[in-house]
This record gives sequence, structure tokens and C-alpha cells, in this order.
Amino acid sequence: MTQPLRVGLAGLGTVGGGVIKILDTNAALIERRANRPIEVVAISARDRSRERGIDLSRFAWVDDATQLAARDDVDVVVELIGGADGPALTLARETLDAGKSFVTANKAMLAHHGLELAGLAEIKGAALKYEAAVAGGIPVIKGLREGAAANVIERIYGILNGTCNYILTRMEAERLPFGEVLADAQRLGFAEADPSFDIDGIDAAHKLSILASLAFGARVDFPHVACEGIRAVESADIDHAAALGFRIKLIGLAAAEGGALFQRVHPCLVSLKHPLAHVDGSLNAVVAEGNFVGRLLFQGRGAGEGPTASAVVADLIDVARGEFGPAFAMPAARLSKLPPADQLAHEGRFYLRLTVADRPGVLAEITAALRDAGVSIESLIQRGVAANGGVYVVMVTHSAVERQVRAALSALAGSDSLTGAPMMMHILDF
Amino acid sequence: MTQPLRVGLAGLGTVGGGVIKILDTNAALIERRANRPIEVVAISARDRSRERGIDLSRFAWVDDATQLAARDDVDVVVELIGGADGPALTLARETLDAGKSFVTANKAMLAHHGLELAGLAEIKGAALKYEAAVAGGIPVIKGLREGAAANVIERIYGILNGTCNYILTRMEAERLPFGEVLADAQRLGFAEADPSFDIDGIDAAHKLSILASLAFGARVDFPHVACEGIRAVESADIDHAAALGFRIKLIGLAAAEGGALFQRVHPCLVSLKHPLAHVDGSLNAVVAEGNFVGRLLFQGRGAGEGPTASAVVADLIDVARGEFGPAFAMPAARLSKLPPADQLAHEGRFYLRLTVADRPGVLAEITAALRDAGVSIESLIQRGVAANGGVYVVMVTHSAVERQVRAALSALAGSDSLTGAPMMMHILDF
Repeated sequence: MTQPLRVGLAGLGTVGGGVIKILDTNAALIERRANRPIEVVAISARDRSRERGIDLSRFAWVDDATQLAARDDVDVVVELIGGADGPALTLARETLDAGKSFVTANKAMLAHHGLELAGLAEIKGAALKYEAAVAGGIPVIKGLREGAAANVIERIYGILNGTCNYILTRMEAERLPFGEVLADAQRLGFAEADPSFDIDGIDAAHKLSILASLAFGARVDFPHVACEGIRAVESADIDHAAALGFRIKLIGLAAAEGGALFQRVHPCLVSLKHPLAHVDGSLNAVVAEGNFVGRLLFQGRGAGEGPTASAVVADLIDVARGEFGPAFAMPAARLSKLPPADQLAHEGRFYLRLTVADRPGVLAEITAALRDAGVSIESLIQRGVAANGGVYVVMVTHSAVERQVRAALSALAGSDSLTGAPMMMHILDF
Repeated sequence: MTQPLRVGLAGLGTVGGGVIKILDTNAALIERRANRPIEVVAISARDRSRERGIDLSRFAWVDDATQLAARDDVDVVVELIGGADGPALTLARETLDAGKSFVTANKAMLAHHGLELAGLAEIKGAALKYEAAVAGGIPVIKGLREGAAANVIERIYGILNGTCNYILTRMEAERLPFGEVLADAQRLGFAEADPSFDIDGIDAAHKLSILASLAFGARVDFPHVACEGIRAVESADIDHAAALGFRIKLIGLAAAEGGALFQRVHPCLVSLKHPLAHVDGSLNAVVAEGNFVGRLLFQGRGAGEGPTASAVVADLIDVARGEFGPAFAMPAARLSKLPPADQLAHEGRFYLRLTVADRPGVLAEITAALRDAGVSIESLIQRGVAANGGVYVVMVTHSAVERQVRAALSALAGSDSLTGAPMMMHILDF
């Protein structure tokens, strides 16, 4: 094969620019690896005149990105527009419908429409590739779809959002409060002006739902990902966790349990002995546990121009080689429709931080509430003084069912012994 | 496709048994992922009567493994016999020559005959797959061949031999000498009766030469891997390294530098800040550094029944799906023939441990030798007493060229100030 693979590129932000740069910089090597050249022929973006530091005059310009699908000179479309619906979705449908392959970094679209698009790709014999949608440059989609394919995956979890990990790492290293680090991250471009997508866990939830589909052979089920972000994590929690031998990480976790799909994004206490505890800054990492392979860890840069573009071009190389198949590792029709697991039935150890009035009897009240809910306490420390003058009571429970822990907190909710909202976090015990 | 992929399995040791167990245990899931069943139909091993805890009566038995290639009921041969030449190589050649795909865990054979076999597979349109040959269950072959394919790889390195890592980890944790841990590892089955293949670094060198081929688009060049094992590592070195903020790991490292291929297996000092420092026991880990993706880390179990068989079956699934191409990421004819790099030109910091007589003037003699060779010292400590009553002088050099460091050690070689052989180790400074 010496025919080039001709690419239509929609979206010329950071990643789009990176794709052009890789294809330029590494052209000779990519041509050897793909056994044919990979060439951008047509591009589309919102703003044609923006200065991007790249010579775009050699590419055909298309005002409406969806027109890329119909061009005779385009074999494969790369979509970097973003958004679950709108032009990205239209472009995906029209590209696949035309029997052309489609490469995307769009986690939101896959979380919402992955099943439909995978089915369409199969019917048309085209590729639907999305390595860049999860964990940036880390080949974890391929790792699950192919590398670990012989295994029943028991559990998949990881650090899926670099912005949150960056904020938590700096909160710990510089002993700064959440709000201050967030503001600085926004100033430095590590967090968006509207940061809620990242810090409330939605971005991680999109990615988790995609990983869960691959890992468990199930249809993507984003709406049932339980999602909790990092806004409620206080510096004091990080200190308490450190004193107990843990670091706090935003963890996306999915498991198939008794025919149901458990999916959750939440801040967790991770033991210093676990490799995820040492994944710092904007790095991402994913752990997959298979019934034969054991624990696999994939780690690297989860965002940014180079890493994300690297994943997009890896997908293009697979397309150029003709090495591709069903998007979610098996034909879409064979993916199970797993019901959501009962989140509150989940069992494990918990970290509880209560801010309480500094007076006799408070501890007795708290421990009684836990006892009444059937939760036993592994350790309890009273340490530090909260901003409001209250005292921190920090507990680690023995293994307990989440429903019981929440019942104890509900029982305490009315008490005037508590001077602030309690914080409950899971402990990652595997 | 509902036709099963029919497997001929040569070799029924630990991994062969594991392959049968995975295909049995995970049959339904594998059939969904491969979109067709994968079934062992014929087997061969040295000893037919050995008890393996598996019902073999359902498979056709072949006394001579090479006959598997010719059987009409075999689509793909899995080779788990081992050995660079002999029946494994004959089987590989005959299988590929018959246009059938070939899956192997045989690093020695690939290190010696990979180029020939890859070329034969291409001509015949068959797959040559070997995920299990490097780092057991970790999909690092796929990670390099496909996941990082868009990148110029600047460097690849890792912990490639679980036996050495197990020994070094126990030497550190239990403060035991090398010989004692090795003997215990042999008793427990973590090391072979003849351990030299592992502890002298040859096994890691086989794997490194394969990784280097994939990473740099070069022909496998095993004979030029500089290879040093862990026999000379003393408990005292581990202590000294720890005091300096390092752990000692057997590292396989390859880089393409100025059109030459640098390949080396050697014990290194790894900073506690580097993720490889925390890869303990029999785990393996590989780091690839790409010019766009940055640093990727793959970690998991590098040996054993389950992990290795998981990799073999992942390859079978790729074959069943028809998702395969050139074995070394590009057509064999396009692999560069890179000359070996000048090992002694390598630059970096070094750890030096000298065992010296406890008398005045010795330090002056050592530091003069280093000065004369142009090597400057970053830190020097005198600590501990060696078994022979001498004193340890431990140094870390500033960045130096290896040739200079070796010149200094040569100059000291005749001196009666030294009461034992000096130890020199590289510091992994990236």
C-alpha cells in the first residue's frame, strides 16, 4: 500500500494543532510504521483567522465541519470539536454513514452516543477509534480492548482527571486551600474558567463509563455513574489522611458485581503503598485487575497537546494499517445491558471527618450514632482546630456497608454538636 | 464469523497449562471479544504422562511438535517450548511457511531469529505475535507497536526480569546477602536451579533487544546488548544507595543516539522519586519516552502462569479478529540496521563503591585517580566495615563519561589500598 491515508480534521484547538505537528514532525517514521503516508488534506474550525503558529494554507478549508464527511479526498475524519451533541455528533454520524473511519477525542459524545456510533461503524465496516478520549496519551483503550482481552476484568479504576489531580497534589505539597489552588490553576491554564466539568467529576465520569464498557463488555451507561467531585476536600482532610498513611485522589472506579454495574467517581483515601498514591500533578493512571493477568497499571500524561495528539495519531495508524474492529471490543449488539449496582450496598472502610463543638459528650454522641447504625470504628483521632473554631474528629471505620455509614451521619445531621457538614470518603482497600 | 480459531499448542509447562485454563474459564467472554470461539484442538509436549491437573483427552496428541504446523485442523500454533533454536525454531518456520499464524512467548528465539521470522510471516500474510515474550502479562509490545506508534521513542527502559527484582527487593527488605536470597528463591521456585540466565541479565537482554527493535524501528540486535547482572551487588551497596535516596534495580535500557543503538542491561541506582523505584518483588515495569506523548509507564506481573497465558491469549484474540500486521511494527525490510553505540561514551552520574584499607592516604590516592581521569565527585562518604575488615568508600560522581570513570578505576586496579573489587553502577537520572 502506498496510497496515503487522507485525513479531514475538524477542530484546530490545542489537540488539533498537535495532530498536525506530529504528522509533520514524525512523518517519515509514521509512514514506515503505517506502511503508507498519513496526510491531512482538509480542515475545519470555528475561527479561520486565528493565529495558530501552523501553516494551514496547504490544507483545503471547510467552513462547515460536517462537510468533511462527504469529501471525496477524505478517507478518515478526526473530530476534535467536542460536545456530546451538535456538530460533533452530526459529523460522526455522517462520516460513518459514508463508510469512512472516524477518530475522536470526544469522551462526552462517546459516553452519550457510543453505542449508536459503534453499531453504525460496524454496519459500514468503518473504524470508530477514540484512544484520546480517555487518559490522553496513555494507550488504555487499547490495553483493555486488546491487551487484557483474555481476562474477565474484576475491577477498573484510576486517576482520570489531570486537573483534579493537579489541584490535590498542590493542596498537599503547598498546604493551600482548595479555592486558592483552583484560582491559581485557572490563571495558569490548568483549569477552565468554568471548572465544574473537571472538579465535579463529570469529565472523569465520562471516561469511566467508556472504560467500564470495554472492561465488562457492557453498554456505556454514563447516567448511572455516581459522581462526587473534590470541592468538599479540605486541606485538613489531606493532613488527616497523611497522618493515617493515605493520600487523597479523585478515583473513578467501576466493577461488575453480581450482574450489575458499579460505577463511581469520588475522592478516595489511597494507601501510600498503592502505586496510584504516587501519581502526582497532571498525570493520569489506570489500573485494570483481570482474573488471570492480575493488576495492570498504565500511567502517563492524561491531557495536553502532545499526549492527546499522540493518541489520535496512534488511532490513525491503526486505521492506515487496517488493524481495527468493533469499537467496544465486541459487536455492539453483543454488549450486555447491565443494570446499575446499588451504590449504597458497597462495602469498605470509610474515612469520616466531623467538625464538632469542643465540649464534653460530643464524642459519646458520635460513637453512639455509629454504634446504632452498626458501624464499628477502627481508629479515632481528635486533631486540629477548624476554621470555625470547632474541633476535628477524624475516624476510620472497620469495613462497613455505605448505607449504614450514611445512616449514622443522618442520625447526627440534626445535632448541634456538629458545627460543619461532615465529610465521608471511601478508602481504596485493594 | 462463527468458525472457531483452532489452536495447536506446543509445550505444556506452566504457561501452556495456563493457556488451556484461560480458554476454558473465560471461554464465553473470549468468544464475544474475538467474535468467534478460540479452541485448542491439538497439543504436544515432551512428557505425555505427566500429571498436569488438566483433562487433555479432548485434544489430539502429537508426539513431534513440529507436526502441528502441517495439521489441517490447526489455524494457529502457540509455541511454549522455549529455546532459541531446535524444535521451537523449526516449528516457527514450518508454521509460518504453511501460511499459518504463530504465537510465542519465546524471547530467546525472537532475539536471535526475529527478523527472519517476521519477514517470513509477512510474505505468507500470517501473524507473528509475541506479547508474552516481554514483561509477561503487561501489553507492552502492543503499547509500543501501536499505542505509542506516533512517536519517535527517545528511550525505553524498565525492570524486565522478575527474578532479579525479587532478589533485590528481598535483599533490601530483609537485609540479607545475595547468595542467601538466591538460595531461598531457588527453594521457593522463584529462581531456576541454574539461575545464570536470569541473574546475569541474559533474559532481560533478550527482552530489551525486542523492545528496542519496536521502539526504534531497528533490526533486533541481541549480540550488542551490553549485559551485566546482579551477582556483584552487595547488601552494603543497597544500604549506601538507600542513604543517598536511591534503590538498586536491574534496568534494561535502550536508546537510539546519533544513528547508533545503545542497549544495556545493568544494575542501576534509581531515585526514590522515579516510579521504577517502587516496582517491587516479581513485578515488571517498562517506561517508554516519546517525543510527543512524554513518559508512558506500563506495570504488572512479568511472569507466572496467569499473566503470561493472558498475553498469549490476547495474541490469539488479535489473530481471531484479524487485527494484526508486521511483527516489528513495520515491514521487516524497512527496519534500520543500526550500528551499536559506543557504550563507553555514555554520560551520566555514577555510583562507585570501593573497599579500601583503613589507613591514611587512601582517600587522597582515590580522589587523585578520579581527578586525573577528569571525573569530579559530587559526594563521598566513608561508611561501614566490609566483611574483609576494609572500609567502604562510596562516591557519587558528577556527570561523567563512562570511559573516564573506567580509566580511574583501571588506574587504581593495581593499588594495595584496595582490598576488594570496586563496584561501579549507573545512576538513572531521567
